[in-house]
Amino acid sequence: MELKEEIIRRAAAAKRAAYALANVSTETKNKALLAMAESLQANKDDILFKNEIDVEAAKEAGLSAALIDRLLLTESRIAAMIKGLQEIAGLKDPVGEVISSTERQNGLKINKVRVPLGVIGIIYESRPNVTVDTAGLCLKSGNAVILRGGSEAVNSNHILAKTIAAAAYTAGIPEGAIQFIETTDRQAVLEIVKQDKFIDVIIPRGGEELIQFIKEHSSIPVISHGKGVCHTYVDVEADLKMAEEICFNAKVQRAGVCNAMETLLVHNGVAMDFLPQMAARFAGAKVELRGDEKTLAILKGIKAATEEDWSEEYLDLILSVKIVETVEEAEAHINKYGSHHSETIVTNNKKRAEEFMRAVDSAAVYWNASTRFTDGGEFGLGAEIGISTQKMHARGPMGLNELCSYKYMVYGNGQVRK
Amino acid sequence: MELKEEIIRRAAAAKRAAYALANVSTETKNKALLAMAESLQANKDDILFKNEIDVEAAKEAGLSAALIDRLLLTESRIAAMIKGLQEIAGLKDPVGEVISSTERQNGLKINKVRVPLGVIGIIYESRPNVTVDTAGLCLKSGNAVILRGGSEAVNSNHILAKTIAAAAYTAGIPEGAIQFIETTDRQAVLEIVKQDKFIDVIIPRGGEELIQFIKEHSSIPVISHGKGVCHTYVDVEADLKMAEEICFNAKVQRAGVCNAMETLLVHNGVAMDFLPQMAARFAGAKVELRGDEKTLAILKGIKAATEEDWSEEYLDLILSVKIVETVEEAEAHINKYGSHHSETIVTNNKKRAEEFMRAVDSAAVYWNASTRFTDGGEFGLGAEIGISTQKMHARGPMGLNELCSYKYMVYGNGQVRK
Repeated sequence: MELKEEIIRRAAAAKRAAYALANVSTETKNKALLAMAESLQANKDDILFKNEIDVEAAKEAGLSAALIDRLLLTESRIAAMIKGLQEIAGLKDPVGEVISSTERQNGLKINKVRVPLGVIGIIYESRPNVTVDTAGLCLKSGNAVILRGGSEAVNSNHILAKTIAAAAYTAGIPEGAIQFIETTDRQAVLEIVKQDKFIDVIIPRGGEELIQFIKEHSSIPVISHGKGVCHTYVDVEADLKMAEEICFNAKVQRAGVCNAMETLLVHNGVAMDFLPQMAARFAGAKVELRGDEKTLAILKGIKAATEEDWSEEYLDLILSVKIVETVEEAEAHINKYGSHHSETIVTNNKKRAEEFMRAVDSAAVYWNASTRFTDGGEFGLGAEIGISTQKMHARGPMGLNELCSYKYMVYGNGQVRK
Repeated sequence: MELKEEIIRRAAAAKRAAYALANVSTETKNKALLAMAESLQANKDDILFKNEIDVEAAKEAGLSAALIDRLLLTESRIAAMIKGLQEIAGLKDPVGEVISSTERQNGLKINKVRVPLGVIGIIYESRPNVTVDTAGLCLKSGNAVILRGGSEAVNSNHILAKTIAAAAYTAGIPEGAIQFIETTDRQAVLEIVKQDKFIDVIIPRGGEELIQFIKEHSSIPVISHGKGVCHTYVDVEADLKMAEEICFNAKVQRAGVCNAMETLLVHNGVAMDFLPQMAARFAGAKVELRGDEKTLAILKGIKAATEEDWSEEYLDLILSVKIVETVEEAEAHINKYGSHHSETIVTNNKKRAEEFMRAVDSAAVYWNASTRFTDGGEFGLGAEIGISTQKMHARGPMGLNELCSYKYMVYGNGQVRK
């Protein structure tokens, strides 16, 4: 009961802050972002000390090396957070922009104006930089934020949040605009996602299990950033040299990210020409291949793909490979097993490319380019809070505009409805 | 278990239909809408007969006259549905529109293109015309729809859905694009809102209780159309004659709708001049007034407003009245007790009007006009599926564009990420 009251108290305070923050000037918000950056620099030693406590506890608890690395803060990782905040200060303020405007026959002038969402709840796992990055993006877009990080990183997250919240407040941001829930009690998540009176949107950032848990329990709208099971389809009319470069880049350039390729689909008309050379290139980068039956007939000795492989997000140097008879088979495979994130077709046939891009139900669909470009920066949106794999509100990379709603401002001179 | 399997089967079929429907031509969709209209005309007698069964059952069950009237179909109400479908056929197809386009330094051309949401679940109460209106809007925007109406109207809804679905299929719309769940078992709603694998958005249309139930149980994003507790604020610098016309229109022109005024806020500097004359005008229209203490001192003999009155959506000729000291007090009252729907300020002071419009957290904010204009048609969006009172995805009147998502279509010539 005490926990519930505490969450309600915090959520209500965030709502009050959000009303004030919606009308804070761009200048004050930018000043606050730079002050937050400076405060991280000034408190660097304390931050590293608190992070050590988390890292030691993680080692004692036997967490994997990969998880401990995600948790770890270093001088250069703190410098990256500082740079991130400075970059957000340099982005265009989305709040107040007139998105569209119309004048009706009765003389009413209707402006559709961008406004903040209000209060955003971020529920995230592991990486402590999320605390700083998301708080910065929410502040610039005029939103109050309630942060709930993973228990492994609680000491790191707590000091990061405390540091930047204090700096923001001193710079003129309303009290309560950046809140961190420091309890590690999992019940807190359940209480947060029920505060639909105060919180406008929940953004979970983490594994599938966390996202599914929140979708099931939240009475607040959720924007989920799901996994990326991205595909490259090499068409019968592909430029095979281009296909090789795109596939290699999509798999190898950075394997542990959501826009990396996890499944390669190849038209049977070019499989014999394409696959052996491609496989040799992948072998050089130590990529493990897992093929369907037809692929195994061409690439002897590779592992067979199981049914589970087709929907697996490896985030690693592993690739499933399947030979298809038609572009329609590729499209159907992607829509069935994919995660609606990013897919590309390599072909010289424009009509087929456009048909593929229409038929595939993903946030980003490419013709003759690597899926690795699905990213707020690469799309010209500036810093991103994540990549949405759902269709409501925002799809694909979410920048500052996507952290906003809108309102209709209607100007009259006495109009009444007939 | 059987019910669950049936819902999953239907939802999966809707998803398959949605993939095909997303690429159906505007011409075919319009042909289908006109065929649906014709089929309602051709089956009018059957529809009226089935509606009589619902109306008789409602009378036997002792439903109120108002609820029975909502349920009732007449020749003219069927004609209105037919006209509605014809009008939707005349609206611009939102699918495929390039919302924005950018070319990056590396030569990638990125188009943000409007696409359907996919499968929309509509869960609604009472009025059978919702079956036809929403199916028409979903079809035009390229979405498959799963309809679940209230049990009182099940016979009427069933025949309406069956009639238009058959006409749409014959006109070339993929099978399964319009589905009606005919069981009156409430468990069906619970099963529908868990099909996040197949259904992209849930739109509840009905009372607060239904909406809250769905928000709590749905693992699918919900767009809620909440109640309308709309306010008019008469400022100290208002043109009192204009204020009187706006207030009268907002309360009386049609009292039973969500954009009608429910609370009148008056600045104490003009209350003595304004309220007696306004009250006399309202008395002529049989509007019951309920005032705060200060209002009671001016308007002797009216009822006192209770704390509950301030957040009540009367949908009737009742109005709560409060005197405020400042525009800030009006703003705070609206943000606390309102439903974030539509509010207006009457004033000659432009600066104060803009400050009010910024501070009030509602879908539509007006200066010197009646709140009754919050409507898809009046805003120039064409027919509407409802008015959203939440901030995510769509806010205010929702037309065809708001029933869509978007995807990024990226055109390259071999680009890979460095």
